[in-house]
Amino acid sequence: MPSTPRQIELVHNMAKAAAKETLAHFRAPINVENKATIGFDPVTIADKNAEKAIIAIITENFPNHKLLSEEFNAEGSLKEDCLSWVIDPIDGTRAYISGLPTWASLIGLYDGFTPLLGVMDQPFVGERFWAADGNTYWRVNNIDKPIKTRACKSLSNAILATTAPHFFEAADIAPLWEEVSSTANLTRYGGDSYNYALLAAGHVDAVIERDLQAYDILPLRPIIEGAGGIITDWQGNPVTSGGHVIACGDRALHAQILNILSKT
Amino acid sequence: MPSTPRQIELVHNMAKAAAKETLAHFRAPINVENKATIGFDPVTIADKNAEKAIIAIITENFPNHKLLSEEFNAEGSLKEDCLSWVIDPIDGTRAYISGLPTWASLIGLYDGFTPLLGVMDQPFVGERFWAADGNTYWRVNNIDKPIKTRACKSLSNAILATTAPHFFEAADIAPLWEEVSSTANLTRYGGDSYNYALLAAGHVDAVIERDLQAYDILPLRPIIEGAGGIITDWQGNPVTSGGHVIACGDRALHAQILNILSKT
Repeated sequence: MPSTPRQIELVHNMAKAAAKETLAHFRAPINVENKATIGFDPVTIADKNAEKAIIAIITENFPNHKLLSEEFNAEGSLKEDCLSWVIDPIDGTRAYISGLPTWASLIGLYDGFTPLLGVMDQPFVGERFWAADGNTYWRVNNIDKPIKTRACKSLSNAILATTAPHFFEAADIAPLWEEVSSTANLTRYGGDSYNYALLAAGHVDAVIERDLQAYDILPLRPIIEGAGGIITDWQGNPVTSGGHVIACGDRALHAQILNILSKT
Repeated sequence: MPSTPRQIELVHNMAKAAAKETLAHFRAPINVENKATIGFDPVTIADKNAEKAIIAIITENFPNHKLLSEEFNAEGSLKEDCLSWVIDPIDGTRAYISGLPTWASLIGLYDGFTPLLGVMDQPFVGERFWAADGNTYWRVNNIDKPIKTRACKSLSNAILATTAPHFFEAADIAPLWEEVSSTANLTRYGGDSYNYALLAAGHVDAVIERDLQAYDILPLRPIIEGAGGIITDWQGNPVTSGGHVIACGDRALHAQILNILSKT
């Protein structure tokens, strides 16, 4: 089942509603709570209000749809024969509280395990990457441009991105990551969900991360796949929840990286 | 000697002239040269053209001033009794070629070793952080707002930023960095010169980097200091060329970090 025009219209409205809340607090003094019992997992009123704004549109218009969202429905999961909205109101809250414009609001819609819609919206920069039914677009000033991944068959030519080095510090992971990152032409840290959007747009060749939550990655899967890219877990399986991911613009590059990282 | 109104007017014109060149190639297919003999140090036609555009304004208006710039005058240095322009046409070329909007054009003016002007311009996002004669401003839509660093006396409350983990991999550095980064409330990777601008604006508390070039950091020193921050090398000396830096918004925090890192 493809997405409906109404779902598409409303997912853009959700992004706008979230932007109103996120921009209201961006670079303004804000109370940062730590929701982790160990370590630091920041959350702010902006995360919560943006998620509420998105959920309000969903519950008004699609009262029977399921919700999987970072702040209020984190325990949800995709289920067969259900339409599910997957929401990360601020992906990159660490960047957000640091004032860096690389956070984004992520919204996805799945029919069972099939992605229908995905949005990655960065309202401070003023750009939105979004996908519907196997096509991906870059929207600036309300103009949509179709985007595609680029060819890059070999890791030695690839721009590789990941958010933070701590993903790869475990003793069994570090040598595999070293093999991948030292072979890549360039490895960049930081960027959060921007890395996946830039992969879809043909500027980045591979994104590798670990221990993601479902809401971190499911809204991005349609954006990657609609642009011609591939995303799997580290064993080559489809991404239908959180975990470890390898996203590539080129299938040959994905096979090369998977060959190394599937040794874990 | 303070800066002159003409210097201030022209430094903004330089930022605009650079933006025309950088935006023309951003996220467009571009040939990336590697200027390093070992490793990867990317440079593009956008870096070169932006630097030429800045230098053209300087040589036309200030033919006697000295130049220290990444692509064409990298061997220059500040000298007593000289006015010197310090230019990094694209700081964060790795981010630039990856499509991430965290690169910037950096322009500084020094009178001997005294900073007069500094500009950090990010034209895709549409914001400019700049300083003149001990005051720092954030410019959006041609409106300037004065900015200040924030108080943060203790590393355990601090947001710490740096560009890449490879700065700190050497055996004598790694434990010191671990002590600093594990004590900080949050350590963020990526960001390039944005980290210093966000420190000036009171969103980030500390930026620590190593092995910088003079053009990477000298244009940012007036922005940091004009906002009330402090920047020194890892021994506490003023930054008048490249090397290792510690920048903080709060002097007490700087003293705490310096106490750890000066053990090298």
